Amino acid sequence: MIKKMRIGIVGSGALGLYYGGMLQRSGQGVNFLLRRDLHAIQQNGLHVHSVNGDFYLPQVAGFANANEIGPVDLVIVGLKTFANDHLINLVRPLVGEQTAILTLQNGLGNEELLAAEFGGENILGGVAFLCSNRGESGHVHHLGEGKIRLGEFSGGLSERSKILQAMFETAGVPCEAVADLRRARWEKLVWNIPFNGLCALLRQDTDQVLALPEGRELAHRIMQEVVTGGNAQQLQQPIDGREFIERMIYLTDQMGGYKPSMMIDRLENRPLELEAIYAIPLQQAAAAGINMPRTQMLYTLLKAGESPI
Amino acid sequence: MIKKMRIGIVGSGALGLYYGGMLQRSGQGVNFLLRRDLHAIQQNGLHVHSVNGDFYLPQVAGFANANEIGPVDLVIVGLKTFANDHLINLVRPLVGEQTAILTLQNGLGNEELLAAEFGGENILGGVAFLCSNRGESGHVHHLGEGKIRLGEFSGGLSERSKILQAMFETAGVPCEAVADLRRARWEKLVWNIPFNGLCALLRQDTDQVLALPEGRELAHRIMQEVVTGGNAQQLQQPIDGREFIERMIYLTDQMGGYKPSMMIDRLENRPLELEAIYAIPLQQAAAAGINMPRTQMLYTLLKAGESPI
Repeated sequence: MIKKMRIGIVGSGALGLYYGGMLQRSGQGVNFLLRRDLHAIQQNGLHVHSVNGDFYLPQVAGFANANEIGPVDLVIVGLKTFANDHLINLVRPLVGEQTAILTLQNGLGNEELLAAEFGGENILGGVAFLCSNRGESGHVHHLGEGKIRLGEFSGGLSERSKILQAMFETAGVPCEAVADLRRARWEKLVWNIPFNGLCALLRQDTDQVLALPEGRELAHRIMQEVVTGGNAQQLQQPIDGREFIERMIYLTDQMGGYKPSMMIDRLENRPLELEAIYAIPLQQAAAAGINMPRTQMLYTLLKAGESPI
Repeated sequence: MIKKMRIGIVGSGALGLYYGGMLQRSGQGVNFLLRRDLHAIQQNGLHVHSVNGDFYLPQVAGFANANEIGPVDLVIVGLKTFANDHLINLVRPLVGEQTAILTLQNGLGNEELLAAEFGGENILGGVAFLCSNRGESGHVHHLGEGKIRLGEFSGGLSERSKILQAMFETAGVPCEAVADLRRARWEKLVWNIPFNGLCALLRQDTDQVLALPEGRELAHRIMQEVVTGGNAQQLQQPIDGREFIERMIYLTDQMGGYKPSMMIDRLENRPLELEAIYAIPLQQAAAAGINMPRTQMLYTLLKAGESPI
């Protein structure tokens, strides 16, 4: 039996709406901090269109301002990292004595940002393997996957992690609590760094990038750089690069023409999550003496593309 | 006094029309093999709009088929290298017992292609520093520069090279005969490989690429790779990378927002000269044991962009 928690969702894009909706459906007390969808959700609730079956939540607690929510047991952060300048101010009103903060944002640096303000012992992170997008206001589409791997920012397999794992599993979200969050983050980067960037830069989906033998070779070499960078970060157990990369490439081939989030951001002229997915991993690798020339070049090309043309 | 030569121009794009027009104005017997501009030039001659002063040639010998021209003293090749499949057939009717063939095409591999068919002793190559484009049919625009550095495919400073130098100089085209054509080609690549590719990939001009510190750093590193690749090719004298790269970057900053030919090719959805400017230099460097990871990555990204999206 899972205890009912009071939860605040910061960053109610597709990820926040989907996970928040699943948690509310399972009986959790979910409060959404909303911008675009505020009015639609306050008036008409939330429609979740999922590959696992659609559902509708007629009554949803949506707020424009975090002060209206106040302290919660659990903050779940789904904010795009390019909006991290606002993260602390958005989260602060939700934090009380016992509040845990779980960031499901992309890349590196998010737990550190929260820990500096709210204390590392209160921070958890997770990587989400979710394919979702927003439709019209008040509607979210879950297109596939959904698994979360989460763990303590301070490391170790805590009771709290296991409770959150059970909470998500009860809500129908596959979840694994891990002892080494840093390793989970770098493992995700092994996929995100090549495919988010190459697809965004070339405006091509994963199938198109892998169709060219040189494109496949380049993705492979970038993945090797990320494995090397990650394995220099004192992980509890190194990533087995050869096996892991081959599995990632195999799974990507199975996915068909997938459009990573960064590609969609670029197609829709939004900023890209370059700090979290490129700049900070590059800095951490460099600090450990690892040079990632192709990753650095991809970052530079993506950053150049952010300039007004 | 320069002997009058019978000249055939193969590949009458902006480069072929400009140099051919300059040579005809100086009294040379120029025959243009034409496609797009055939009718306009046969009817109305050639208009040259130049930063050095406009001129008009009312009578221009334009042909649709090289057989109508027949053997000449000098073939000048200005064909885009992505059309090199047609090069031998276009040149063959122009070649007699004494014909010299000068290719002013971009990149590497063009002299070799001609030498395999017509004999290396008949081949010269040159790098052209020319900023020009075509306007309406029968008009060519010379926007700046124009210097040619030419030399023997077989190496050495021949009498023939000096005669061609004098021919161009007499026609108002700055020209330098060089003993080491291979070095001249690699020196040009030190600029072409970074700037043609980065500008085409990003659809940004040279100023935009150099505006970002990371973009400037990347251009610099790619240039270093090309210098290293070139200096492994048994040049008569190595390229002084440090001095040469700094001068090239300085000159590029002076050029203002320049759009390299490959960027224009991409903006106009033409094929790119990837074999001559990337694939063959990469092969030659690899054969000498030199790895050019950023150049290889740039080539891959450009090639991926050639696929139908």
